[in-house]
Amino acid sequence: MKPLTLVGLVYFISVFIMSSKSLRQSQLFTKTRREAPADELAKNAQLLIRAGYVYKNMAGAYTFLPLGLRVIEKINTIIRQEMDAIGGQELVMPSLQDSALWEASGRWSDDAVDVWFKSELKAGGQVGFSWTHEEVITDLMRQFISSYKDLPKFPYQIQKKFRNEMRAKSGIMRTREFDMKDLYSFSATQEQHDTFYAACSDAYKKIFDRLGIGQMTYKTFASGGAFTKFSHEFQTLAEAGEDIVYVNEEKGVAVNEEVLDAADLSELGVTRDELQKRKSIEVGNIFSLGTKFSEALDLYFTNENGESKPVIMGSYGIGPARSMGTIVDLLADEKGIVWPESVAPFLVHLVGLNGEDAAVRDWTEGIFNSLTEQGVEVLYDDRDVRTGEKFADSDLLGLPYRVVASKRAKEEGKFEVVTRATGEVRSLTEDELWADFDTNPNT
Amino acid sequence: MKPLTLVGLVYFISVFIMSSKSLRQSQLFTKTRREAPADELAKNAQLLIRAGYVYKNMAGAYTFLPLGLRVIEKINTIIRQEMDAIGGQELVMPSLQDSALWEASGRWSDDAVDVWFKSELKAGGQVGFSWTHEEVITDLMRQFISSYKDLPKFPYQIQKKFRNEMRAKSGIMRTREFDMKDLYSFSATQEQHDTFYAACSDAYKKIFDRLGIGQMTYKTFASGGAFTKFSHEFQTLAEAGEDIVYVNEEKGVAVNEEVLDAADLSELGVTRDELQKRKSIEVGNIFSLGTKFSEALDLYFTNENGESKPVIMGSYGIGPARSMGTIVDLLADEKGIVWPESVAPFLVHLVGLNGEDAAVRDWTEGIFNSLTEQGVEVLYDDRDVRTGEKFADSDLLGLPYRVVASKRAKEEGKFEVVTRATGEVRSLTEDELWADFDTNPNT
Repeated sequence: MKPLTLVGLVYFISVFIMSSKSLRQSQLFTKTRREAPADELAKNAQLLIRAGYVYKNMAGAYTFLPLGLRVIEKINTIIRQEMDAIGGQELVMPSLQDSALWEASGRWSDDAVDVWFKSELKAGGQVGFSWTHEEVITDLMRQFISSYKDLPKFPYQIQKKFRNEMRAKSGIMRTREFDMKDLYSFSATQEQHDTFYAACSDAYKKIFDRLGIGQMTYKTFASGGAFTKFSHEFQTLAEAGEDIVYVNEEKGVAVNEEVLDAADLSELGVTRDELQKRKSIEVGNIFSLGTKFSEALDLYFTNENGESKPVIMGSYGIGPARSMGTIVDLLADEKGIVWPESVAPFLVHLVGLNGEDAAVRDWTEGIFNSLTEQGVEVLYDDRDVRTGEKFADSDLLGLPYRVVASKRAKEEGKFEVVTRATGEVRSLTEDELWADFDTNPNT
Repeated sequence: MKPLTLVGLVYFISVFIMSSKSLRQSQLFTKTRREAPADELAKNAQLLIRAGYVYKNMAGAYTFLPLGLRVIEKINTIIRQEMDAIGGQELVMPSLQDSALWEASGRWSDDAVDVWFKSELKAGGQVGFSWTHEEVITDLMRQFISSYKDLPKFPYQIQKKFRNEMRAKSGIMRTREFDMKDLYSFSATQEQHDTFYAACSDAYKKIFDRLGIGQMTYKTFASGGAFTKFSHEFQTLAEAGEDIVYVNEEKGVAVNEEVLDAADLSELGVTRDELQKRKSIEVGNIFSLGTKFSEALDLYFTNENGESKPVIMGSYGIGPARSMGTIVDLLADEKGIVWPESVAPFLVHLVGLNGEDAAVRDWTEGIFNSLTEQGVEVLYDDRDVRTGEKFADSDLLGLPYRVVASKRAKEEGKFEVVTRATGEVRSLTEDELWADFDTNPNT
């Protein structure tokens, strides 16, 4: 390998800096507000609305405002990296659904599936709006799978689902419209399937660790249906949860109520007495689908012996917005949101005080520019509002580090740096500040 | 500014290299096919389906497969960069629509708007699926605009639209479901509005230039409605177009048929005789909306004199998939697709021949790894198929540069490098190859 040229280096660095996207708060079109709407009962949505991350358009439908979209994009990037690392290949399938595919699998009727949105097509007939994509991906993969040599394959997407829920609830965690990462596995043998199922389970663990909710998230045993004894949900323990799990924190074992009989528990090495009933949020799930969809939709391949066999499938879901809501619910404190570095919209909240003093203001601008050029993502509060309001907004917004640039800081050559999660207050010189964020790149 | 440390440099570079995402063709789950489906009449979709960029799910609904999604993401990145550069701030609004908002603007009824998809909400009442977002963004901005100090603001999104078209046609260019970049401007004064309208028009020109279709794309004068004399469409001259424009290529003037009367033309400095009737594709449009939506939905602000005034609005659309289809229609040749560097899914197609020879294969792998480490995006054809098939697929896929790595190349120390757009064939040493792609970074 030829070493990188200096021109190449400068190019790479400039691309990286451009993508760091720091922002002046005075330019942001959103604002914080004192109160959430009266009809918003969930803590995650109350905080996210007050801080200007999301807007509630109607029950079960939210707008992701610029700050909220940045969080979602960071969550999506983490999910994509982990899916790509285990062989995932991203695509995007449509929302509009052809009834014929779903009639073949027996899931078109409203009796079989109670969350369909359907509409009349002007050209004649009905269309559905996708609430999941097993039928679509199975149909599509017929184009590309004919031999065992074409397997295994792992397409995934991050794409909208519509669900006609009777009640939207829990803020951004159970909505009528939401993005989901759904990966589908296509395998030739049960061994191939099991290998990927385990790899995806490990990848999910990494994702929840990186999102900052790993410690409270359990791979939970659920009933497996026709093809395997168990399926798995990833459940995060939280008072705001709608689900119930039975967990032994010491042994790291969790089950849902389908798996409470003594034989199942004994297989998992726990007894009923050792399990504690807890509320939880389902942040992800992985299913073995067996050959249900490949048989219904005619997805067969020729194996090494020349025999025609149905492809073995699995599906693997994570909702980015539900993850975001869970992070808020779990980590927020009485002052507001607390983002982990990995998903914070900006790493640093630079709070500029004494902006009426031109010298202080110019100096603060210099700090903002230097941090930005260094690749640190900074939200710079350059607004002309009271100091108390700036600090209250800063706590509510929940960025990992607050750096206060004031007349006193300029004179003393020391910044107050507050770590949002712990409340730790440090007094750092300019050099110490650079060194600190040099070793805290916002990945 | 403190100079970047070596650790910082290595970090930046490794992030950039990770994101370059080269790919082995043997791993890609899609395949090329000889024929497009019989019901697919548009050249853009025929080529994109044959090459494995898209899959047709039903009339008017397509899947973007991994290669196609890479093209869309590159188009989206160009659009985002130019929108951010003029002050745009990205958000995502929902698809589900509350009828009340649209009743206020008079656009809920199927008599007023003939492309609605609507559905029954299980909880009672009807919901619509967004075909545009003026009502939603106007409602939302009431939260954030109260004073002239809050203006101007330029929120935008890249988000799905649903349109219940009687006929889906022109491949991926007129579908029933598609992503659109829609920016909305909110201004306090006509001058503010006009300034942004001109800036966005310039940004659109830059976008179409960067997409490689600038030369054939005209800012076309259309009738302006109640608030301005003219609105503007961006029309790309193309035989596959559904629209008609009247254009004078020398003067760089184009109008649509609404603007054919002598007085209008004289204002634009052309006569009817100087205009040629041409087919075209509408790739973008910009509208002055005046105060139609702000008055209907009660979006008022207080001006510098303390008076309450309706906000002046504009809307600015581009369809990424329609741009992609236009690029294919305009630049493809008889052998297949021809991507400009700016949107190609990979810059280089490394075609490995003589893979049965382990020494050649190892050497080719080395080339692949070196290019990738250098930050070049490479699709590496490591498949075990005939040479002729590799070349035919390479032409069909249309990546900007084909580099042939064969036994002969290894022995002679020279690569055949073919520029897809021009057919130019060069014979380059390994050093010349590195130098070539060093100066062709895939932005």
